Amino acid sequence: MLYRLLNRINHPADLHRLSSEELVELAEEIRHLIISTVERTGGHLGANLGVVELTIALHSVLSSPRDRIIWDVGHQCYTHKILTGRFHQFATLRQWHGISGFPRPSESEHDHFGAGHSSTAISAAAGMAIARDLKGEDYSVVAVVGDGALTGGMAFEALNHIGSLGKDIVVILNDNEMSIANNVGALSDYLSRLRLDPKLYRARGKLSSLISKIPAIGSPMSRLTHSVKEALKSMLPGQLFEELGFTYSGPFDGHNINQLRKAIRDGIARRGPVLIHVHTQKGKGYGPAERNPTKFHGVGPAAVPVPDKTVTFSEVFGATLLELGKRDESIVAVTAAMKDGTGLGEFAQAFPSRFFDVGIAEQHALTLSAGMAASGLKPVAAIYSTFLQRGYDQIIHDICLQNLPVVIAVDRAGVVGDDGPTHHGVFDLSFLRHVPGLTLLAPSTGQELADMLAWALGSSGPVAIRYPRARTAAPSGIYSANYDPTRSVELRTGRDCVIFAVGPLVYEALAAAEMLYPQIDCSVVDVRSIKPLDSATILRLARLTGNVVTVEDNVLAGGFGGGVLELLTSEPGVAVSRIGYPDAFVPQGPIERLWEEYGLSATGIAAAVRELVSGDIAVAAAKGD
Amino acid sequence: MLYRLLNRINHPADLHRLSSEELVELAEEIRHLIISTVERTGGHLGANLGVVELTIALHSVLSSPRDRIIWDVGHQCYTHKILTGRFHQFATLRQWHGISGFPRPSESEHDHFGAGHSSTAISAAAGMAIARDLKGEDYSVVAVVGDGALTGGMAFEALNHIGSLGKDIVVILNDNEMSIANNVGALSDYLSRLRLDPKLYRARGKLSSLISKIPAIGSPMSRLTHSVKEALKSMLPGQLFEELGFTYSGPFDGHNINQLRKAIRDGIARRGPVLIHVHTQKGKGYGPAERNPTKFHGVGPAAVPVPDKTVTFSEVFGATLLELGKRDESIVAVTAAMKDGTGLGEFAQAFPSRFFDVGIAEQHALTLSAGMAASGLKPVAAIYSTFLQRGYDQIIHDICLQNLPVVIAVDRAGVVGDDGPTHHGVFDLSFLRHVPGLTLLAPSTGQELADMLAWALGSSGPVAIRYPRARTAAPSGIYSANYDPTRSVELRTGRDCVIFAVGPLVYEALAAAEMLYPQIDCSVVDVRSIKPLDSATILRLARLTGNVVTVEDNVLAGGFGGGVLELLTSEPGVAVSRIGYPDAFVPQGPIERLWEEYGLSATGIAAAVRELVSGDIAVAAAKGD
Repeated sequence: MLYRLLNRINHPADLHRLSSEELVELAEEIRHLIISTVERTGGHLGANLGVVELTIALHSVLSSPRDRIIWDVGHQCYTHKILTGRFHQFATLRQWHGISGFPRPSESEHDHFGAGHSSTAISAAAGMAIARDLKGEDYSVVAVVGDGALTGGMAFEALNHIGSLGKDIVVILNDNEMSIANNVGALSDYLSRLRLDPKLYRARGKLSSLISKIPAIGSPMSRLTHSVKEALKSMLPGQLFEELGFTYSGPFDGHNINQLRKAIRDGIARRGPVLIHVHTQKGKGYGPAERNPTKFHGVGPAAVPVPDKTVTFSEVFGATLLELGKRDESIVAVTAAMKDGTGLGEFAQAFPSRFFDVGIAEQHALTLSAGMAASGLKPVAAIYSTFLQRGYDQIIHDICLQNLPVVIAVDRAGVVGDDGPTHHGVFDLSFLRHVPGLTLLAPSTGQELADMLAWALGSSGPVAIRYPRARTAAPSGIYSANYDPTRSVELRTGRDCVIFAVGPLVYEALAAAEMLYPQIDCSVVDVRSIKPLDSATILRLARLTGNVVTVEDNVLAGGFGGGVLELLTSEPGVAVSRIGYPDAFVPQGPIERLWEEYGLSATGIAAAVRELVSGDIAVAAAKGD
Repeated sequence: MLYRLLNRINHPADLHRLSSEELVELAEEIRHLIISTVERTGGHLGANLGVVELTIALHSVLSSPRDRIIWDVGHQCYTHKILTGRFHQFATLRQWHGISGFPRPSESEHDHFGAGHSSTAISAAAGMAIARDLKGEDYSVVAVVGDGALTGGMAFEALNHIGSLGKDIVVILNDNEMSIANNVGALSDYLSRLRLDPKLYRARGKLSSLISKIPAIGSPMSRLTHSVKEALKSMLPGQLFEELGFTYSGPFDGHNINQLRKAIRDGIARRGPVLIHVHTQKGKGYGPAERNPTKFHGVGPAAVPVPDKTVTFSEVFGATLLELGKRDESIVAVTAAMKDGTGLGEFAQAFPSRFFDVGIAEQHALTLSAGMAASGLKPVAAIYSTFLQRGYDQIIHDICLQNLPVVIAVDRAGVVGDDGPTHHGVFDLSFLRHVPGLTLLAPSTGQELADMLAWALGSSGPVAIRYPRARTAAPSGIYSANYDPTRSVELRTGRDCVIFAVGPLVYEALAAAEMLYPQIDCSVVDVRSIKPLDSATILRLARLTGNVVTVEDNVLAGGFGGGVLELLTSEPGVAVSRIGYPDAFVPQGPIERLWEEYGLSATGIAAAVRELVSGDIAVAAAKGD
C-alpha cells in the first residue's frame, strides 16, 4: 500500500485538514498498516483494529498534546502512535530498542500517561483534570476505557470519585463486549441491555408527552405529575452512570467517524463528567480477528519450532488441572480475564460450574478463592505475575494470614518479551517471599509443574507456583507420592562452586557448568522451592564448595538470591554472587536477548562463576555481583 | 451492670428463645458492656455501637455457625463476639494474648472469615456461596458491609461478579454515612438520595395505578403501556444495585430489631443475590461518639504522657504539609479515608480545593496522584502502611515506571499495637525496597520527618517516607537547604560494632550502646534512607568494625537488613546480625511489648551485639541471627 494520506500526517493537527471522506480512507490505510506490521512483530491486533475510527475521530476533534487522551491498558494505542509522528517508526513496534506497544511518555509528548495494566486511565485523567483546574489551564482530558477494564475495581473507585468531584472530564467507554476473553459480570449484562434495547429511551419520550396532556394545576394529579417527572429521570439509559454523577450519551457506532466526531465534540463542550458509550468491534476489518477475537487479543510473531519443547508451561498447567479436576471434584479454577492465556480453556469446558472468570478483577479473584478455601473447596487462582501485583494485599490479608489452602498459579513469571516493562513478571519472588506462611515454588520443567500442582492441591496452606512464558517438554504423568518440591535437586555435582537456579534457568546453569568444566567444576541445583528454602542442601553445598552463585529471572533486591544471603549470614567464608535484574525497569525485547543482556544466559552465568572462583584462593571469602 | 440476659447467652442459638422485649433489653446490656470495656482497652467504639441491634437481629434469625455471617473490615464484630461465647473473655479485648478486635477464625467457629482491611467480605461470601452450592450444602451466607467499604474497588468487583452468578447471598449494607471519616463519592450521594427520598418509590406506585386505567387492548396506547411498565422497573429505589443483578430492599431502621429481623428473614428466603440497605447511627447510644463519630472510630486507652514527646509523627506530617502548602500552591494532599488519622485535617481546612479524600480506595488514590504529578502538581498521598499494600501495583506501574514525583507518606509503619496482624505495617520496607526508581526514607524524629517531607517535595522522582504510630518531639522548623536524607548520620562512634537502625529504633540502639559500653564500643547510625542505601557509610563502618547489626520495625525477609546483606556480599569477614520480625505474622499487643518480644528493644539489641561480638575473635567472621 502507498499510504497516500499517512505520508501527509506528521502531527495529529494535520487531521484537522482532512475531509470526511479522507478520514475514512485514512482508516483503511491505518488498518492495513497495523495488520501488516503485527503479522511480523506480534502485538495486540484485535483491540487496535477496533479503535481505528475512534482514534481518528478523537485526534481530528482534539488538539493533542494540549488536549490529553489517556489510553487505558494501553494496548489500543497503535493508531494513536501512527497519527502522532510515529508512522515511520511503526515497523519497530515491540522490537528491541523499538517503539513500545503501549503508551510511553518518554517516547512522545502525545503519550500523556503510560499503561499496560487495566483500569488506571480514569484515575490518571481525574488527576490531570484536577491539576488543570488548580493551575487555571484549559484543555480537555479524555480517558478511553474498554468495557472489560470497567470490571476492575479501581475504575469504579475513580468513577465514584469523579462523579462527586464534578470536574470536566470525558470518559469514552470503548465497548467491544470483550475484555481479554469474553466479558463477565453484571455490568457487562447491563451494557448489553443499553446497546440492544433503546426501548426504555423511547418509552420515556412517549410517557413524557402523555403526562404533559394531564391538566388540572394544583390537583393531586398535578402533584403526581411532578413526582412522575422526577421519576422519569431515572428512566434514561445509562442510569447507572448517571447515578454515579456522569452525563451519559450513547451508544454510538464506533466505526462511524462522523457520528463519533459529533459525540466527542458534544462531550467536551459539556460541563462536568461525561461518559460516551461507543460500541466497537474487536478485530474490525480483519476476518480472522473478527471471528476469533480472543485468539487475536495478543498475537506473537510466527513461532519458531523448538525440538523437545512441545508445550507451554501454561498448557501443562491447564492439562494437569483438567486431569486433577477429574479426580477431585472439590478443585475449582478462578481467573481474572486470563482464561485462555493461562491454559484454563479445557477445564472451563469440562467443568463449567467449577470455573470462574471474574473479569479484570484480581483482588476479587483472590479473596473469592480465600472464601472458597474457607468453605472446603480447593481453589486454584491462575493470574499472570504482573497482574498478581494487584492482589498483593489479598494474598497477605485474606489468604496467608488465615492460612487458607489457596493455590496461586503465577503465570508469565520473569521477563515476558516484547510487551516490555509493564508486563514483565520480575517482582514476584520479591513480593511473595516475605509473606508469612506462603510456600513459593518454581518448576524447571513441565513435569515439575504438573507434580508441584498436584502437591500444592494436597497442601493444608497457601502455595504459589511461578512459571514463565516459555515452552517445555510435556510431562509424562502426574506424580505426587513421595514427591516433595520443598527439597531441591542437585542435577550436577562439582566441588568448586554451586549454582542455585530458579525454574528453567537451571538449564542455562547446566550449560554454564559444561562450558566451565574441567577448569571449574560446578554443582548445579534446581532450587524448586524459594520459600521455604531447602536450607540443609544450600548450607551443605555452600560449605562444601565455598562459592555460591544464584540465578533468578527476578529483580535482585529481596529476591531468591537475597533469601540465600539471609540464610548464609552465619556462614563465614562463603562467597556469593547473585544474578538477576538490577534496580531498574527491564525494557522490551526477546526473552533470550534479555537474559543475555542481564547475564542470565549460560555465558553470563559462566562469567559470574569464573569471576567468583578466580578470587577464591586470593581472598578465601566473599565476592558479590 | 448485672448483665442479666448476657449471662444466659452462651451460644447464639440462645437468642432464639428471647422475646422481642428481651432482645431490646439485651441491646442495652451489650451497649453498656462495649462502652465500659472500650473505655479501658481502646477499640472501635462508633462502628460497634452502630450494629448492636443489627447483630442481635442477625443472630436471632440465623443459626451460626451453620449460617455464615461475614463481617467486612471486622471492626464491627464486638456484639457478634459477645453473643458467640466470648462474653466472659470480652474484658481481654485487644490485650496481649487476649481476644482480637477483629473476627479471627482461629478464635471461634463463628468467625468464618478474618478481616481488618475493608471491602473483602462480599468476595469471601461469594466464595462460600459457591462452595455451598457445589457441595450441595444448605446454609445462608450474609456479608455485612459498611457504606464506606463500598467505595473500595474490590467490593464493586465482587458485586459485579455476584450479580451475574445469581447465587443466594445476602449483602447487608450497613449505611452509617461514614467510612472512617465522612464518606465521599458519588455512591455516597446516591445512598443519601435513597435514604432521604422515598418519593420515587411512591411515584412508581401511583404511576402504575394510573397506567392500569388505560384500556384499549391492541391500541398504540396499549403498546405504550407495555413499554412504560418496562420502564417502571427502572424507577425502583436501589436501581443501581438492581442493575448489578441484586434484589434491593430498604432502607430499614438499623436500630429497630423487629424490623431488621423481618428484613433479614425476607432476604434469606429470596432466591439470588439480595442487598438489604440498613441505616445505622455510628456511636449509637454513647453521646460523645454520636456527636463526633470520626474521633471515636478507633480509640486508644487513656494515654500515658511522655516527656519530650509532645506530638505524633502524623501530627508532624500534617503540620509540616500545611506549612509547605502555604509556600507552594502546587502541593496537593490525597488520602483514602484517613484524613484525621494521617493528620491532614488542618491542611484540608486551609486548602479545601487542594485536598482529596477519595474514600476507601487506595488504588485510585495513588494513580490519581500519578495523574496529578504528570500534570505539574506535587501530590502527597498519605496512606497507612498496611493499607498501602492495596496500592502495590499502582506504585510500580503508575508511579515508578513513569518516574512521577509523587510523595507517599506511609503512616503507621511498623507494628501498630492492639489492632494486631491485620493492621501491622511490617512489610513496607520489603515491598517498597525492590521497586526501581523509588526513594524510601524513614525519619527517626519529627524534625527528620519535616525535613524529609520538604526534601521529597523538591525531588524529581517518587519518594516514600515511612514513619510509625508513635510520639516524637515537635520539629523546630523545616530545613531543606543542604539537607540530604540519602546520607545516613552516625550518632555515636565506636570501634567494636556498628548498629544501623531504621526510624525511631535508633534510640533503642543508642540505649543498647550505652548498656554495652565500655565492654563493647558501638557506633550507632540513623540510616534515614533505606533506598538508596548510603553505601559509602555502611561499607566504611562495616569494614572498620567488622560487626554489623541491623534493626528494623519490619519483617526480616527482604527488608532493610536484607538490603545491607546484599550490599555487603563483596565484604569478606564482616559479620552481620539482623533484628526484625521473623517469618510469621506478628500478634496484637502494646508496641513496646512487641519490640521487647522480638528483640527490637534496647535489651534485645544489646544481646544481639554481645552475641555477635563475642564470636568475633574466635571466628573472625560472620555470625547471623
